[in-house]
Amino acid sequence: MHHQFRNDYSVLAHPRIMKALARFADEENVAYGLDEHSEIAAKYIRNIFVCPNAKVFFLAGGTQTNMVFLSSTLKQHEAVVSLETGHIYVHETGAVEGSGHKIITVKGQDGKIFPEDIEMVMSHYIDEHMVKPRVVYISNSTEIGTIYSRGELESLRKVCDKYNLYLFMDGARLGSALTCSICNTQPNIIAKTCDAFYIGGTKNGLMLGEALVIVNEKLGEDFRYVIKNKGAMLSKGYGVGIQFEEAFKDGLYFEIARKTNVIADYLKLSLEKCGFCIVNQPTNQVFIEVDEKLGSEIMKEFGAELWDKENDKMTIRLVVSFVTTKEDVDELIQFIKNHL
Amino acid sequence: MHHQFRNDYSVLAHPRIMKALARFADEENVAYGLDEHSEIAAKYIRNIFVCPNAKVFFLAGGTQTNMVFLSSTLKQHEAVVSLETGHIYVHETGAVEGSGHKIITVKGQDGKIFPEDIEMVMSHYIDEHMVKPRVVYISNSTEIGTIYSRGELESLRKVCDKYNLYLFMDGARLGSALTCSICNTQPNIIAKTCDAFYIGGTKNGLMLGEALVIVNEKLGEDFRYVIKNKGAMLSKGYGVGIQFEEAFKDGLYFEIARKTNVIADYLKLSLEKCGFCIVNQPTNQVFIEVDEKLGSEIMKEFGAELWDKENDKMTIRLVVSFVTTKEDVDELIQFIKNHL
Amino acid sequence: MHHQFRNDYSVLAHPRIMKALARFADEENVAYGLDEHSEIAAKYIRNIFVCPNAKVFFLAGGTQTNMVFLSSTLKQHEAVVSLETGHIYVHETGAVEGSGHKIITVKGQDGKIFPEDIEMVMSHYIDEHMVKPRVVYISNSTEIGTIYSRGELESLRKVCDKYNLYLFMDGARLGSALTCSICNTQPNIIAKTCDAFYIGGTKNGLMLGEALVIVNEKLGEDFRYVIKNKGAMLSKGYGVGIQFEEAFKDGLYFEIARKTNVIADYLKLSLEKCGFCIVNQPTNQVFIEVDEKLGSEIMKEFGAELWDKENDKMTIRLVVSFVTTKEDVDELIQFIKNHL
Amino acid sequence: MHHQFRNDYSVLAHPRIMKALARFADEENVAYGLDEHSEIAAKYIRNIFVCPNAKVFFLAGGTQTNMVFLSSTLKQHEAVVSLETGHIYVHETGAVEGSGHKIITVKGQDGKIFPEDIEMVMSHYIDEHMVKPRVVYISNSTEIGTIYSRGELESLRKVCDKYNLYLFMDGARLGSALTCSICNTQPNIIAKTCDAFYIGGTKNGLMLGEALVIVNEKLGEDFRYVIKNKGAMLSKGYGVGIQFEEAFKDGLYFEIARKTNVIADYLKLSLEKCGFCIVNQPTNQVFIEVDEKLGSEIMKEFGAELWDKENDKMTIRLVVSFVTTKEDVDELIQFIKNHL
Repeated sequence: MHHQFRNDYSVLAHPRIMKALARFADEENVAYGLDEHSEIAAKYIRNIFVCPNAKVFFLAGGTQTNMVFLSSTLKQHEAVVSLETGHIYVHETGAVEGSGHKIITVKGQDGKIFPEDIEMVMSHYIDEHMVKPRVVYISNSTEIGTIYSRGELESLRKVCDKYNLYLFMDGARLGSALTCSICNTQPNIIAKTCDAFYIGGTKNGLMLGEALVIVNEKLGEDFRYVIKNKGAMLSKGYGVGIQFEEAFKDGLYFEIARKTNVIADYLKLSLEKCGFCIVNQPTNQVFIEVDEKLGSEIMKEFGAELWDKENDKMTIRLVVSFVTTKEDVDELIQFIKNHL
Repeated sequence: MHHQFRNDYSVLAHPRIMKALARFADEENVAYGLDEHSEIAAKYIRNIFVCPNAKVFFLAGGTQTNMVFLSSTLKQHEAVVSLETGHIYVHETGAVEGSGHKIITVKGQDGKIFPEDIEMVMSHYIDEHMVKPRVVYISNSTEIGTIYSRGELESLRKVCDKYNLYLFMDGARLGSALTCSICNTQPNIIAKTCDAFYIGGTKNGLMLGEALVIVNEKLGEDFRYVIKNKGAMLSKGYGVGIQFEEAFKDGLYFEIARKTNVIADYLKLSLEKCGFCIVNQPTNQVFIEVDEKLGSEIMKEFGAELWDKENDKMTIRLVVSFVTTKEDVDELIQFIKNHL
Repeated sequence: MHHQFRNDYSVLAHPRIMKALARFADEENVAYGLDEHSEIAAKYIRNIFVCPNAKVFFLAGGTQTNMVFLSSTLKQHEAVVSLETGHIYVHETGAVEGSGHKIITVKGQDGKIFPEDIEMVMSHYIDEHMVKPRVVYISNSTEIGTIYSRGELESLRKVCDKYNLYLFMDGARLGSALTCSICNTQPNIIAKTCDAFYIGGTKNGLMLGEALVIVNEKLGEDFRYVIKNKGAMLSKGYGVGIQFEEAFKDGLYFEIARKTNVIADYLKLSLEKCGFCIVNQPTNQVFIEVDEKLGSEIMKEFGAELWDKENDKMTIRLVVSFVTTKEDVDELIQFIKNHL
Repeated sequence: MHHQFRNDYSVLAHPRIMKALARFADEENVAYGLDEHSEIAAKYIRNIFVCPNAKVFFLAGGTQTNMVFLSSTLKQHEAVVSLETGHIYVHETGAVEGSGHKIITVKGQDGKIFPEDIEMVMSHYIDEHMVKPRVVYISNSTEIGTIYSRGELESLRKVCDKYNLYLFMDGARLGSALTCSICNTQPNIIAKTCDAFYIGGTKNGLMLGEALVIVNEKLGEDFRYVIKNKGAMLSKGYGVGIQFEEAFKDGLYFEIARKTNVIADYLKLSLEKCGFCIVNQPTNQVFIEVDEKLGSEIMKEFGAELWDKENDKMTIRLVVSFVTTKEDVDELIQFIKNHL
């Protein structure tokens, strides 16, 4: 079987993550995330993202992290603003609504929310017969692989301040965003512009785990209660702590992301040489438009996902993961050339 | 530092579980629990528990499993019956109530619910101004380490049938229950008497994971939607599938539990020789009554947990885990002898 | 002060409703909606809507009725489909989401949902990472005063049957819909095409109260429990029962609605004579486009509500209620003429 | 048929309430509780209870008021402390749990909670694996008709301050409590000791309505959003406002309660003359122990409710309402005498 370009979570874990787990396999640890590994990992993260007072919590997955954070931050009549293509709105089976909150959608552009989207929401939601917008939810990298520039984040911060809104970044693929070639945003800018964000482990070489970083000191009160209340507290929390400790102690997290981006860039270049149009796709998700016949074959052989379909044209998504190699890309390209 | 008798989830995983994870570390797998490892593990479980049509789902932890199952099974006005010492009632930070459901409590005896408890509930909850009892929640082994006999389970089944109630068993320590010396219940009896139960991995040598087994075909409809809706679907579900496959392919799960029980029995015998009274404690949790001074020292040195306190007497809990050895027990006993 | 055209719930109750309440003011009645007045009212409704087995419940308000019915009908991962202008989506402060359910929006046309909207939803919501559509929510008359024709309802029924969806009609203004001049739908058609609907009292001359009619026998199980669970059960339920009994015993309900529609038609005709364009507005809500200056004055003097604003043009809403008279209309028209 | 002693909400409304409603039946009012009647009623209440900055909201019923207030005040992991016989725990079909919150129960005494009950709760609920107690819920008069003395309220206030808890009083029968012969508590003491309380209208001569008074300025933020979110906002809120205005403009509310208490006292005296033991029953609920045979007949003929049953002895409840007369009592007493 060919290497699969389906997603970035089809392989258990990066070898160094596996080794770290093995190293501590028989060590006695305090349970429920109160262990030293989690504490050290949190310190690394606070240092790297330059948010010395941030609260850091390790959770199992992205949907869970979004739901736990939002349900803790929003009061029952408050809502979160998201793109209408946002992960929380489309692909989380109503987890946020399940915890009682409306998601207000905006159209945005290039997979991103802009201040004018927020302005429009705030001019519309004006009285107690409507929910009260309170959090702006963005993804970085976005659902379509684009990233927020530093200026864009700063302008979102500004509009959030204007309307007393919290800015929350879903960083399931934050590694890819921060290490891609066009990125002008350093980790500290994330922590400076967002009230909270999470650093995705699952899609960047970890077995499981997302690190939720709550920067705004007003948020996250009693957060361990909330985690438990939502069934999200792991008894063996140190299992995730160990992984994040390894990922952040010497830059492994960003190294994995950078290497993945390099292969993704190689894929994009190779596709362009075949005549495909690759615009504004700086991270590890690559979208191409193909004829239905070829698209179907790439989906079947290489696990690409169907993203959109119009008449006999398909848009398919190819995701490069931490295990993808140049050879895997070459094989895919050869296949495409043979079928063009 | 001495070996800690605090709980059975302070060490990451059994060596064979670690090896299984390492073996499949770079294999490509389908995500979200639809992988072959999960499927094989489910088959093993269906075979061993003799419930060929049961639905099997792998979740991350116990509180989560209880909450996801109960919230899926109960309608908004329906309630679950539990001991007033039940894990869902006391130690899950209101997760079940958080999903909208009242827990009706009964006193029971020896950590167990009996038919007369259910009869009393059913005679009391009679109209629409009260919630409607719908599920009976039991733990096996129980919160105080006792177990349900075959006869007790069958009589609970009977009273549940009488009142159209579902019987749900929290099996966080089901391994210990099924392999302890006085157990007269085989796995098939669990599946025969309960509408659903879960097999705890986290407290029996796995890194994480509980296997929820839904036997009653009326339950569990659209269950994968529910799992996702509650933020409980793991992207790398195969990480748990691999562990359960290893645990059930050749009896490892029960071997770990049995070995733990043997050490626990050795601890109980040793404590009795010291003059402690050990009654009705067949599994891996051992409770002793000690003077406050000695109790505090055992807690400090060996991580025992305070269970109860009256005047200058303490009840403390000692838990034997899969890594506890005879030597660990001897060391504890020596310490106690030195301080009696 | 001029008569206000703000809405149809600014005056307490129709004289006959007040008299009925006075008539039974000192009668002893069974509480919680189990009284004879409620029973008789339910019988009248079953007769008139020709649904002899329907369950009928009396609730206090529209938002409450929508939320109680939907939360009873939907499982946690199931969703309701609504227009993006639907009352539950825009004007109920997230009550439906607050009870745990996503609202899937469609664009529709003329304030109405059509089968192709449902088809599009069903082609999109296809797996367990998304919510599962289960109810289609429509309003009749709609938020913009249009009505569903018999054919439109029948075609919605058909597409709902195709996809196993329930059809629920918000009838806050059902009286106006069923008695307007272009209506080709009889009450029995409502009960035949919808799985459930409610008959609005508050906006048609009652002091408070909506009659929820659950036609589909699969729905509404244990519904009195649900009502109480949502805090929606009135101790003095007979207070609402008395009003609905009066409203339906000899046609008062429809008489009020018809009379209101007649005055609304007079208003529309008068406005057209002034040069306003009144298209597709068969019921008691009238929308006109005016210059900002005149619009603001009508809002100030006659309580019209701002509906939309583009550049210096406003769309304002004028609502005719059961107390509005021809003279009130004439006064408004004179005012407009003076200010054109 | 005899006058029924079943409860205090079987008759629609006091004549003066009916007259007030009739008086304003055709007046145009602002909707949603923003009308002048509601405003005036709120002012009367703030004056009488001496809480000039309190927020006052009018809701439809008691279960709704409890649920809306508690769900607004508690975060998801926080709990309310109640007697195990508390109305929210037993008779509201899980409405509080349905909004996501655990109810922690205490035994109390004479239907009341005492500081030592709170102390015990606070010593037990100590970490994030348990819910966090945040509100103490009491009823006055209580479920068994007793009342809190001034000293008892002040000592509860003290223990609440000690542990940073809010004190909330369910005043469904507050009128009866404040006007009974042994009461040493003035309205201002209620507002001084409680963070919030509600004044029951439904059980004291109103058609419907409870006035929620939020004294603590930290609570009740965005409360109108919360009311709407829970489906509890009445379009014709002025219908309740008119009733509370009438009830509080010249003391009618307390007059009704006082008169009811007088009749209740007459009933108690008459029962004592028959040999019944009436102890600590200062308000309008009267409990007597009778033989099963007589109890059943009183239940059948006079609508008494069964409260408890042991062997062949019944405890039945007789409730005096605003319409009960001395003659009604005499008839009941005669019946009892004839059957003793």
